[in-house]
Amino acid sequence: MTAKILTTEDFLLAAKRSEISTLRQLMISCDLVTRATELIHELQRERGQSNIYLVSDGRRFAKERDEEMQTCLTAETNFRQVLNKLNLDHCASSSSRIFSCIAHVLHGLDGLPAQRELITSGKIRAADNTKAYSDLIAGLLSLVFEAADLSSDPDITRALVAMFRIVQGKEYSGQERAWGLIGFTAGTFKDVLKERLKVLQEAQDRCFDIFNNFAHTIAVAQWRQVENSEATGEFQRMRQMINRYQSGDHLPTAISDVWYEVATRRIDSMQEIEHELAAALLTLCQQKIDQAEEDLRLHHDKLKSLEDIGEPPQSPLSAMPDASGVSVTPGVNVKLARTIYDLVQGQAERLERMSGELAEVRQALEERKLIDKAKGILIQSRGITEEEAYKQLRQSAMDSNKRIIDVAVNIISVADMLKGRS
Amino acid sequence: MTAKILTTEDFLLAAKRSEISTLRQLMISCDLVTRATELIHELQRERGQSNIYLVSDGRRFAKERDEEMQTCLTAETNFRQVLNKLNLDHCASSSSRIFSCIAHVLHGLDGLPAQRELITSGKIRAADNTKAYSDLIAGLLSLVFEAADLSSDPDITRALVAMFRIVQGKEYSGQERAWGLIGFTAGTFKDVLKERLKVLQEAQDRCFDIFNNFAHTIAVAQWRQVENSEATGEFQRMRQMINRYQSGDHLPTAISDVWYEVATRRIDSMQEIEHELAAALLTLCQQKIDQAEEDLRLHHDKLKSLEDIGEPPQSPLSAMPDASGVSVTPGVNVKLARTIYDLVQGQAERLERMSGELAEVRQALEERKLIDKAKGILIQSRGITEEEAYKQLRQSAMDSNKRIIDVAVNIISVADMLKGRS
Repeated sequence: MTAKILTTEDFLLAAKRSEISTLRQLMISCDLVTRATELIHELQRERGQSNIYLVSDGRRFAKERDEEMQTCLTAETNFRQVLNKLNLDHCASSSSRIFSCIAHVLHGLDGLPAQRELITSGKIRAADNTKAYSDLIAGLLSLVFEAADLSSDPDITRALVAMFRIVQGKEYSGQERAWGLIGFTAGTFKDVLKERLKVLQEAQDRCFDIFNNFAHTIAVAQWRQVENSEATGEFQRMRQMINRYQSGDHLPTAISDVWYEVATRRIDSMQEIEHELAAALLTLCQQKIDQAEEDLRLHHDKLKSLEDIGEPPQSPLSAMPDASGVSVTPGVNVKLARTIYDLVQGQAERLERMSGELAEVRQALEERKLIDKAKGILIQSRGITEEEAYKQLRQSAMDSNKRIIDVAVNIISVADMLKGRS
Repeated sequence: MTAKILTTEDFLLAAKRSEISTLRQLMISCDLVTRATELIHELQRERGQSNIYLVSDGRRFAKERDEEMQTCLTAETNFRQVLNKLNLDHCASSSSRIFSCIAHVLHGLDGLPAQRELITSGKIRAADNTKAYSDLIAGLLSLVFEAADLSSDPDITRALVAMFRIVQGKEYSGQERAWGLIGFTAGTFKDVLKERLKVLQEAQDRCFDIFNNFAHTIAVAQWRQVENSEATGEFQRMRQMINRYQSGDHLPTAISDVWYEVATRRIDSMQEIEHELAAALLTLCQQKIDQAEEDLRLHHDKLKSLEDIGEPPQSPLSAMPDASGVSVTPGVNVKLARTIYDLVQGQAERLERMSGELAEVRQALEERKLIDKAKGILIQSRGITEEEAYKQLRQSAMDSNKRIIDVAVNIISVADMLKGRS
């Protein structure tokens, strides 16, 4: 080979440079996440208002809906503009999943104008309408999840997991608001509706538990404030009202407005926390990039200043600190060898520490994937819906006094066994 | 913004292209892994022979060692040549860890000539010599591990985990051979030596258990053949001899040659399996690349042929199969919209399935990181060595009838609690 032989120093600096360019890529992802969460928020509002518009045969929320569609369009434009910052030729190992997610979302967004026409002309049922918007929102949520999955910096992953969970919790809240509205508007809560609301409440609790574990102190304090607020108190009383509802009772339909208002106030306060998280996330990314660039400069200068001494850049094992009793081969630039050793060692230790922390934070991500996989196995083998599959997991966990994730892992390993994998 | 607005189709194709370029990168990593395992094998031989050379004051294995150093140099050259294929500007999220690993390994290799001079002139003790070679081998092993960690294809990760575990198991075997040789040469086995050999045997068993779970059928069958061979039978009998050794016994030192020979035969048969794994790994990578390129061509042609029909490429939600009862907006290229929907959906489902499988396979990788982290906590908080930390983990697992990984996770979560993290 005639090519220049790559040295220890080359790889030492390449490791730092790779870290920096990964962080830059991650910064764009975080930008994308922020825009995606903003778009989710507007789609949630539009979903709610278009449903009221539909069930009232166009008599209510016509004006609000018109205004909201404009706001939503702006959010969509902002989202699409960040997409143009992405380097489509970039080949980080999870890029294909992010790109595939984006294709899914764009496909949904391309269909929105036609969807809106159907609503305006009253040619779609509220339930189908809810499904269409919810699918689009689910696609955007997956995008937030994939961004968290892409990160290899434990602190940023941590922040992205917190973001994902609060957005997910907010979406469950939005669904609770929508189904509650249907119940209060009708003045009745059938058992199946009560059960659905209970599942949505539990799902929210789980999201906010994880959020509390992963978010930074200020955001957690903000959330505690929301939980202790007067609005949440009123919201909880309305939840109890639904819970105590007995078949045959008839609730005054005027309550539906109050329900919508307190649920909305709660959701809006979640959005404020999202803003806080988004700002903190971008600051964190920028700090990490600055730090890594500073490190690279230091590494570079250190190596340069020592090489200038002119001795050959060798670095024998015998110059390592832990073999210091051993005689040193003459003619070797010992100072340079020691510096390289320190840099190599320091970098390796730092990356290993990060890798351990990352593995810990990633447990929260892996859990979601494993639960999804177990659900998929149940859906396929028993021909049930996703909601039913989740209920079965939950029931089985309660019956055996285990965590849902443990039940999921069990299902997967048994399925593997049946396939003859292990 | 004046830039071209990116479409659903752009991201659909970008996802495929990103998959392909990631696979190409992975192919180079696999190449690197193969060269690294070959270099490990030669370093293991050189370590063994240089130790015999040292303890016999240069009377034995002088010629063998000279020849082995040449073979080792060739393996080193092959390894360095693959390094030149790496794109140092590439920024996959784990590249920095791989690069840092390589810097560590190169630094060690740069020191080998000086190390060899020390051996030739008898200026180093066998124990220090063992440590120097073992550190270098550990660095190369980490490289194999990082390559497995980099992969986002579940089948390739699976193959790389199998490779990592057999190479790791082989290294423990090499250490067992070295320490056994020291015992047989002295004719005595002190308790601390017997304990160390027991730990090494257990570590091997764990490696081969995981190997059996992850390797493909042919390699597993090959390993079963090794386990049932006459050589392994003889090796097991010698292990029992060590086990039954009582303080005061004196073994004939001639046994040391037999020990070295049967241990070496066993290790060499592991290397044959490594060759088998390496060949299968490269074939697997190539197949995956071919398949992905074929898919990309198909996607491309399908979209092209439909766009040529000339209608505008819109894709409303109303054209989705699951909303098929709904009237379709006129003027929309329904066929194209459906095709895009099918492609987007198919790709998303495939990637999600892969992601679930990957999460499952990665458990084996995460476990190693979590155990390392727990060891690190013990080392720091109690000021003990790595070997002692591992023994404590093992003891605690045995006492509480848990798996080592469960004990490790416990330690980490308690340490986090004490730091006020959760």
